[in-house]
Order: sequence, then structure tokens, then C-alpha cells
Amino acid sequence: MMLKIYFAGSIRGGRVDAALYRRLIDYLQKSHKVLTEHVGNLSLSVLEQGKSGDAAIYDQDTAWLRECDLLIAECTCPSLGVGYELAYAEKLGKPCYLFYQKDKVQLSAMLTGDPYFHIFPYREEQEIYDVLDRVLAPAGD
Amino acid sequence: MMLKIYFAGSIRGGRVDAALYRRLIDYLQKSHKVLTEHVGNLSLSVLEQGKSGDAAIYDQDTAWLRECDLLIAECTCPSLGVGYELAYAEKLGKPCYLFYQKDKVQLSAMLTGDPYFHIFPYREEQEIYDVLDRVLAPAGD
Repeated sequence: MMLKIYFAGSIRGGRVDAALYRRLIDYLQKSHKVLTEHVGNLSLSVLEQGKSGDAAIYDQDTAWLRECDLLIAECTCPSLGVGYELAYAEKLGKPCYLFYQKDKVQLSAMLTGDPYFHIFPYREEQEIYDVLDRVLAPAGD
Repeated sequence: MMLKIYFAGSIRGGRVDAALYRRLIDYLQKSHKVLTEHVGNLSLSVLEQGKSGDAAIYDQDTAWLRECDLLIAECTCPSLGVGYELAYAEKLGKPCYLFYQKDKVQLSAMLTGDPYFHIFPYREEQEIYDVLDRVLAPAGD
């Protein structure tokens, strides 16, 4: 079944992992629909867009959070937006799968301490794809 | 009236602004109760505390979010935890006042685009105290 996925990654918090987001989104798009594919756009603007521009982004992203089947977040780069999106998705009861590079950062206790989230610390990028294959496999496979 | 304040600042996302958090908390504590004064502790551990340790932090912080009269966040340093706390406080209807150094960072559209938050970009630290005096003044002053 083609799932609608909300992919969350840092934008204004820092684009150091943007190429990784791109690879993850490419992988997900082979079998599913990624609503937020712009997160992997390497030339995405990180500038504030003024009151109405930022309100339009907020309205679109929260609409996608309501629409999605599940959320996948790459959390290595700290981001206020991703933290907000995770709490918002939790409120809506959307399944949330979080990944972070465990040799690089310590994840917030607001995430690791929250029993709602499925959290996967990893060392090598390949581990993410292995988890995704398992998590996104059609029931019965 | 002595208010119960939830002060939010980055912990595991980075402690570059910890001394600023300390000064803001000191200022607030002159007239109010800051539930999260540890956020300004310059020797606070930023290490994950294991499953039960992080769950205890999460339980305490969410209890304080329910207990507080309002939330004040210093958002210059990106933080997943602060983003999560802001969405959680919004869900509870707690008034939220956000500050960030506008010459240093671009704030997430999930915050600037959300009409719920009161957001104050600043250049000089003194501007924060001026806003706090106004926001926290007893009604009728």
C-alpha cells in the first residue's frame, strides 16, 4: 500500500544533513508518497518569509501532518520545527519513527523519555534503510 | 502576583546560550517562581540518562508544563526539546512568549507562522527584560 509520509528534518535549524534527508526521501519515494519532499531540496531557502509567508508554510505543514499516515524524522540536527512537528503529530495519534546518529548527538529527553515515539539511534546510514524496510513493509509480508 | 513560569531553553541541543538562560532566570526569580531553573545551571549534564532517567525528566517537565501559568522560551539555539515543549504548551492553552536573536538565526516557520505564539526578535539582551517587564506586570499597572 502506498503510504503518505511526513518526512521531518531541520530547515532553519541548520542544513548540515540536507543531503542525507534527500537520500532518505528518494528511498521512501520508491514505494510511497512523501508529502514534504522539499525538506530534501538542497537549494531550499532557509530565510524567514515574512508573517504571511511563514503562516502559509505553517498552514501547509500542519495540513500535511493531519493528512499523513505516519511521520519519519531525522533528528541528528537539532531543530525547533521538528520538535514542534513531533508533538503535533503525537497529539494527532500519527505513528512517529525517529532516527539520530548516536555517536554525534544526545537526543532530547522530551523525545527519548516520551513512550509514544519509536526511536532508532544509528551508527551507519544503512541501518536506517533496514528499519524503514521493516516498518513500512505491508502487513502480512 | 507571583507567577509560575516554565522557562524553556536548549539543553542537549547545545549549551552555547546557557549563561544567558541563567541571567534571564535570575531576573524572573526576583518576582516569580521559575519551575525549570535547572535550565540555567551551567554544569547541567547534557548526556542521555537511559530509558528510565529520560522518562523521569519527561514526566517532570510535562507536569511542570501543566502546572505553569505561562511559558518563556529563549529560542536562539535550535532545540528539539524546546520545539516539543512549545507545541505541548500550545495544546494546553498556556501563554507562550518566545525570544530569539534576530541577527544570528532564522526562526522556524512552525513558530513564526503559528498565530498562537507571542514572538519577540531582539538585538540586545536588554530588550528581553523590557518585554518581560511589560508582559509580567500585574494587571492594572
